[in-house]
Amino acid sequence: MRLDVVTIFPEYLDPLNVSLVGKARARGPLDVHVHDLRRWTHDRHNTVDDTPYGGGPGMVMKTCPWGEAIDTVTADGYEQGAARPALVVPTPSGRPFTQETAVRLSRRPWLIFTPARYEGIDRRVIDEYGTRMPVLELSIGDYVLAGGEAAVLVMVEAVARLLPGVLGNAESHRDDSFAPGAMADLLEGPVYTKPPMWRGRGVPEVLLSGHHGRIARWRRDEALRRTAEHRPDLVERCDPAAFDKQDRATLAALGWWPGDDGRYVRAPRPAGAADGGPGPAGGAARPG
Amino acid sequence: MRLDVVTIFPEYLDPLNVSLVGKARARGPLDVHVHDLRRWTHDRHNTVDDTPYGGGPGMVMKTCPWGEAIDTVTADGYEQGAARPALVVPTPSGRPFTQETAVRLSRRPWLIFTPARYEGIDRRVIDEYGTRMPVLELSIGDYVLAGGEAAVLVMVEAVARLLPGVLGNAESHRDDSFAPGAMADLLEGPVYTKPPMWRGRGVPEVLLSGHHGRIARWRRDEALRRTAEHRPDLVERCDPAAFDKQDRATLAALGWWPGDDGRYVRAPRPAGAADGGPGPAGGAARPG
Repeated sequence: MRLDVVTIFPEYLDPLNVSLVGKARARGPLDVHVHDLRRWTHDRHNTVDDTPYGGGPGMVMKTCPWGEAIDTVTADGYEQGAARPALVVPTPSGRPFTQETAVRLSRRPWLIFTPARYEGIDRRVIDEYGTRMPVLELSIGDYVLAGGEAAVLVMVEAVARLLPGVLGNAESHRDDSFAPGAMADLLEGPVYTKPPMWRGRGVPEVLLSGHHGRIARWRRDEALRRTAEHRPDLVERCDPAAFDKQDRATLAALGWWPGDDGRYVRAPRPAGAADGGPGPAGGAARPG
Repeated sequence: MRLDVVTIFPEYLDPLNVSLVGKARARGPLDVHVHDLRRWTHDRHNTVDDTPYGGGPGMVMKTCPWGEAIDTVTADGYEQGAARPALVVPTPSGRPFTQETAVRLSRRPWLIFTPARYEGIDRRVIDEYGTRMPVLELSIGDYVLAGGEAAVLVMVEAVARLLPGVLGNAESHRDDSFAPGAMADLLEGPVYTKPPMWRGRGVPEVLLSGHHGRIARWRRDEALRRTAEHRPDLVERCDPAAFDKQDRATLAALGWWPGDDGRYVRAPRPAGAADGGPGPAGGAARPG
């Protein structure tokens, strides 16, 4: 995969030389090019921004340097055999970047990132390149950054770890929160490693039992418990068909019941509801 | 504000020397300390991780180095006069980090970040420090990173720009997407700057009109349009009392109508609905 990043702070992208992404670059699956936008300015002050039409505070990034930059970068990529570029524009006004977006982006051969500063890039740049390639305006979350560079680091890392051959043995994405599969839409519960006792704190007994079925059940209950506590929106979104009998009992013990459409909502116990069944397996062993 | 970051990849935090955060450090409002977790290991291999109790793929970060690190860092901070530390643990299993969280964190005097790698930190570390200081497990979005360092860059940047005296004249947070105020819960629409014509593309006439009322109206309609397109969840969440008559007409033209509880939903035009009123001001001037 080829990645280009055009920015006025190229040094902000230095973490792309570190750790997993750095190794993916060294080993080959990732070919990263970071460019200084000011290379495509032609005045003495290397101006990239100007006041907004219509007035108001803040500055807007000018069309001209971005246009020349993207033209040069795409021409260079095509020359080196890259194909099918997509433009990724990090912006708080974009569609949400999620694990699903990361998976989709990880299948593309070439991404060009244009992290902006100030109030953003003159809209005409997005309109112009939208006629030539897919343009994805993406937001990594509901907060405001000083610029798009940190968002690029986030997106590149989320995408890079999905590329074949990038994750080593010490890492894994089988049980990831948000990964497709059994744990879809559930957050991961707590994890433990040696020593068995630390500052008077032990490890939940079930994890030392060697009983794979009970361990899997305990992990699932912890995942349900943590999701209900930290992300009730994810429980509400879950397909109730994905919950087995014990899931339903665990949810009931946490105060969650199926609503009118079958999806779970946090609610008082409905009159005539079936008994929640046995308490969550290993629930008494909750750490803390 | 004092910030400590404990990590096995200190160089990943180098962007904290760049741009806005770098300037805030140089000028004084921000006092940042980055620590290498391996400083608190005592074996020849500087081991920070081990296999998870209960089996499964991946590695878990050990209690001991984290415990020693946080103890040393807090002792050092207290000695230098810092007070009221809070521990911020970036994890995909955390509560969502939003602009509201950024505002809340920006009011604290001292944050200690513990970005993890692999499957996360042994739970007992969070339980232990939770008895001594507020512990915030936070997720910057619904995707999985290779480690928490990129999330720390995001959170520090979102927090730092809210500190008094950090944002310069070229920047502004009055009209930010997600900022409290008139634009609350709406995404920002397109922005433009000179030149007036670029590659055959002009600027919406209303922005050149000098008519402040019409410009404000156009911007609000564009914000509504973009929010409806990219983030229907935000429109649904909006307090309908915040919509004026023209907002309602613009939403109607986009296919949004008040539902049973008054909140807006994307729906076919209800029978007997009041006429949407005049089309959105400047709507015909939509760029593109």
